[in-house]
Amino acid sequence: MEMSLHFDHAHLFRNQITMPRTPEQAYAELAGRLKQTTLLESCVSVLGWDEQTYMPPGGAAHRANQLSLLAGLCHERATAPEIGQLLSEIEGTPLVAEPDSPIAANVREARRDYDRATKLPRRLVEELSHTATLSQQAWIGARKQSDFNQFRPWLEKIVALKREEAQAIGYGKGVPYDALLDAFEPGMTAADVTRLFTPLRDELVKLNAAIAASGRRPNRDIIERRYPVDAQRQFSLAVAEKIGFNFDEGRLDVAAHPFCSGFGPGDVRLTTRYDEHHFPGAFFGTLHEAGHGMYEQGLERAAFGLPVGAACSLGIHESQSRMWENFVGRSRSFWDHFYPQAQQTFPEALSATASGDFYWAVNDVQPSFIRVEADEATYNLHILLRFDLERPLIAGDLQPADVPAAWNETFTKYFGMTPPDDARGCLQDIHWSSGGIGYFPTYALGNMYAAQFFVAASRDLGDLPAAFARGEFAPLKTWLTEKIHRRGKQYRAQKLVQIVTGQSLSPDSLVRHLHQKFDELYGL
Amino acid sequence: MEMSLHFDHAHLFRNQITMPRTPEQAYAELAGRLKQTTLLESCVSVLGWDEQTYMPPGGAAHRANQLSLLAGLCHERATAPEIGQLLSEIEGTPLVAEPDSPIAANVREARRDYDRATKLPRRLVEELSHTATLSQQAWIGARKQSDFNQFRPWLEKIVALKREEAQAIGYGKGVPYDALLDAFEPGMTAADVTRLFTPLRDELVKLNAAIAASGRRPNRDIIERRYPVDAQRQFSLAVAEKIGFNFDEGRLDVAAHPFCSGFGPGDVRLTTRYDEHHFPGAFFGTLHEAGHGMYEQGLERAAFGLPVGAACSLGIHESQSRMWENFVGRSRSFWDHFYPQAQQTFPEALSATASGDFYWAVNDVQPSFIRVEADEATYNLHILLRFDLERPLIAGDLQPADVPAAWNETFTKYFGMTPPDDARGCLQDIHWSSGGIGYFPTYALGNMYAAQFFVAASRDLGDLPAAFARGEFAPLKTWLTEKIHRRGKQYRAQKLVQIVTGQSLSPDSLVRHLHQKFDELYGL
Repeated sequence: MEMSLHFDHAHLFRNQITMPRTPEQAYAELAGRLKQTTLLESCVSVLGWDEQTYMPPGGAAHRANQLSLLAGLCHERATAPEIGQLLSEIEGTPLVAEPDSPIAANVREARRDYDRATKLPRRLVEELSHTATLSQQAWIGARKQSDFNQFRPWLEKIVALKREEAQAIGYGKGVPYDALLDAFEPGMTAADVTRLFTPLRDELVKLNAAIAASGRRPNRDIIERRYPVDAQRQFSLAVAEKIGFNFDEGRLDVAAHPFCSGFGPGDVRLTTRYDEHHFPGAFFGTLHEAGHGMYEQGLERAAFGLPVGAACSLGIHESQSRMWENFVGRSRSFWDHFYPQAQQTFPEALSATASGDFYWAVNDVQPSFIRVEADEATYNLHILLRFDLERPLIAGDLQPADVPAAWNETFTKYFGMTPPDDARGCLQDIHWSSGGIGYFPTYALGNMYAAQFFVAASRDLGDLPAAFARGEFAPLKTWLTEKIHRRGKQYRAQKLVQIVTGQSLSPDSLVRHLHQKFDELYGL
Repeated sequence: MEMSLHFDHAHLFRNQITMPRTPEQAYAELAGRLKQTTLLESCVSVLGWDEQTYMPPGGAAHRANQLSLLAGLCHERATAPEIGQLLSEIEGTPLVAEPDSPIAANVREARRDYDRATKLPRRLVEELSHTATLSQQAWIGARKQSDFNQFRPWLEKIVALKREEAQAIGYGKGVPYDALLDAFEPGMTAADVTRLFTPLRDELVKLNAAIAASGRRPNRDIIERRYPVDAQRQFSLAVAEKIGFNFDEGRLDVAAHPFCSGFGPGDVRLTTRYDEHHFPGAFFGTLHEAGHGMYEQGLERAAFGLPVGAACSLGIHESQSRMWENFVGRSRSFWDHFYPQAQQTFPEALSATASGDFYWAVNDVQPSFIRVEADEATYNLHILLRFDLERPLIAGDLQPADVPAAWNETFTKYFGMTPPDDARGCLQDIHWSSGGIGYFPTYALGNMYAAQFFVAASRDLGDLPAAFARGEFAPLKTWLTEKIHRRGKQYRAQKLVQIVTGQSLSPDSLVRHLHQKFDELYGL
């Protein structure tokens, strides 16, 4: 029995007198309910953003109570039996006969969300939520002391609960991991990811070995000079605006762990963090979040609250951030345009440095133990490593106790060096402690999507680097909005890629992009 | 039929199997419901604060949708028939036999809130809300063009709706205005206010006439020199912290229309606005909001969500802000302590100015047309004027069309000068346009409460000015917390004053305070 389940009495009464409804009436009712739930969820976003940006330390306990109440109200609405009833009145009718129509897409995704939400027993949802809170606390302490044993029992608990979740959700003829991956990248399976990641891994290991063997190095000192925080902020704001983020409908604030949060039409919040002696952190971080933010700003306003008005998948979302961070922001032509402005903004750091040296410094490739500090060439290997461990963990083929050894072994294989401790190894990320197993692959998928989209955009728009060098970013932004943002969840990610690029997803574009950039820089 | 009324089905079911409940069980259920409603209302506060501080302009429409949804959910909970059922199971039982016990106070105030909320027909609530939105827009335009005729039809509509509200709420043997005043100052009537305001008016008119006749003037230039905004902010933060506002559990941000918002335990937000060439605005504004904020921070945490954990009344709330703004912050002894720090913070403006001259400049008395710019001696006359008009408006004895003439006539009587236009007359405040009739008296009541509390605190704590001069503010803050904040709504305001000060509310302490300060400054 759901203690806090609410029934809309007036609604039931209306049903009684108007039954049977037409599918059109049922759809209108469904759409209204979905929109209201999304609107309520968007209130959660505001409280979550404030928690990460401005909330005083003393407000944490009360904020947790507020968020817990709102989460409960959202869950009630998302799992209301009326949703299932409405869906069953619509499915199979001519209203959804055309499978790619916006209505059919909304019904398809509403069914998916409803099934996922209702398949999980409330006991499991609560235990996962409770365990994640405690587990994150344990993880913080374990990482600080680099002591995996403190975290091991929690990882065991999390893995057990996520395996239970996979069973409850179901995975057809696939593997349990599919059910978890599907939460973040709907429709994608572990087999799909393996097929994409295996050739990528081979190429990346070779590329990075060649870069290391080249013996070439940029002058890293360039990006570690003094970049005053106020100037960084002004420059980041100016560039984010120039590439197309609309600050009349958004903001940039400071947060310890940068993120982007789209509250709804007209209000998208970016965050970053500044380090006076590390230029790339805040700057490329802002471009990254602005990429996410432009996706949110590009969603169809009239469809807010419906699946076709929401982002397609986490991987597609990440493709938009990586597009602007790496494919645009770390390109030579981008700096052809912006470097004079950067020199003006940071005269102390850059007045005596040539554009080409700066460009190389922000594209330095150097294996690191920490994922979030990784460069474009090594980053995906960090992701592949995590996928290599997650899949057997959920299959039961790898025990949580064996994670540190497995991590270090795989890391050494990929990077040619071994983490000196677990803090710089398997304890570095928050994801597993919070139950986010199945999330990591979307980062590398995002890079692949971005590469393939960039090739397609170049095909449609001509010489993009030449446009960037002239300071023209609107064509690419408009293309992304039309081809990707406006479509929301009309198509699942794999179909969207097929439609937009004419090909199914592959690692080829990404590998070609990396070779194109790094072969030149490192004389390969 | 309430379209969006929700019934808690599980709750009804529980009732069926456990009826009859004991009063204790009913009270526990009631308390749980009240706390949940308050928690949800506190989410509204977060969204409201963000709207006034950081929300980008484009977010307004979506924010209105979010707030409207949450307001509806709060209203549903506040008017749920189960509340009435629970109250009737508790009232008249031994559980509430002791009328001043916290439980009895919670039940008394819950009854009041429930009755007020359920007496208003939904049609009237919606019409008021809708009219207020449009009316505020009309008011903005009318004020800008100083054209009362643009606003007149809206004022007529608002007055008609508020008269209807008064009838729906009821007012016993009193007058309709009582029902409106009661929304802001529970238990107080128009007759009470008249009895308090009449002698106050006579004293204030005399005092201000004497000040004008004195021919003395401070050097106003002192407070209009250059006070860099960053330094103002640092100084305001330092002083607010020193007098006792806890910044681990609160913040100070910028807003166009300063306010204080208590989100709940551990999170109280102050706002202010800075003008580089007007020191008092941000500084005394911050002290004012910090006074409100310390009240919120002083509420009983364990009682959050219940009436005894909430502020007593708007008038009592205002007494706390005025206490720190005027009775402390505008006192000579306060500046005996802080002036050296002010000189250090603002060397350009203050290094060559004596403390006494500065003290007088921040206490300059000069009649002004605009309430929010008024000094301590004239401020209350602005309030009395508004009460003089509100009461006959609601009684039907003054027509909205006749407001400008009535305003100017009364203003001239009180201040000896006539507003040159309605923008500086009856169009200056937002309150009436938003339906806030009955609100204004709480400002002057707040000043009276503050004066009387200050006398009582001096009686209990000894020489307060001497303590301020030594930089000791904790004794007063602790006294206010114990005597007022911690008690929440345990007593209605009039009884609280009686208990804390030993006397019923009167204007005497306020008049004495003003004479004490201004007789000296102006040689009366």
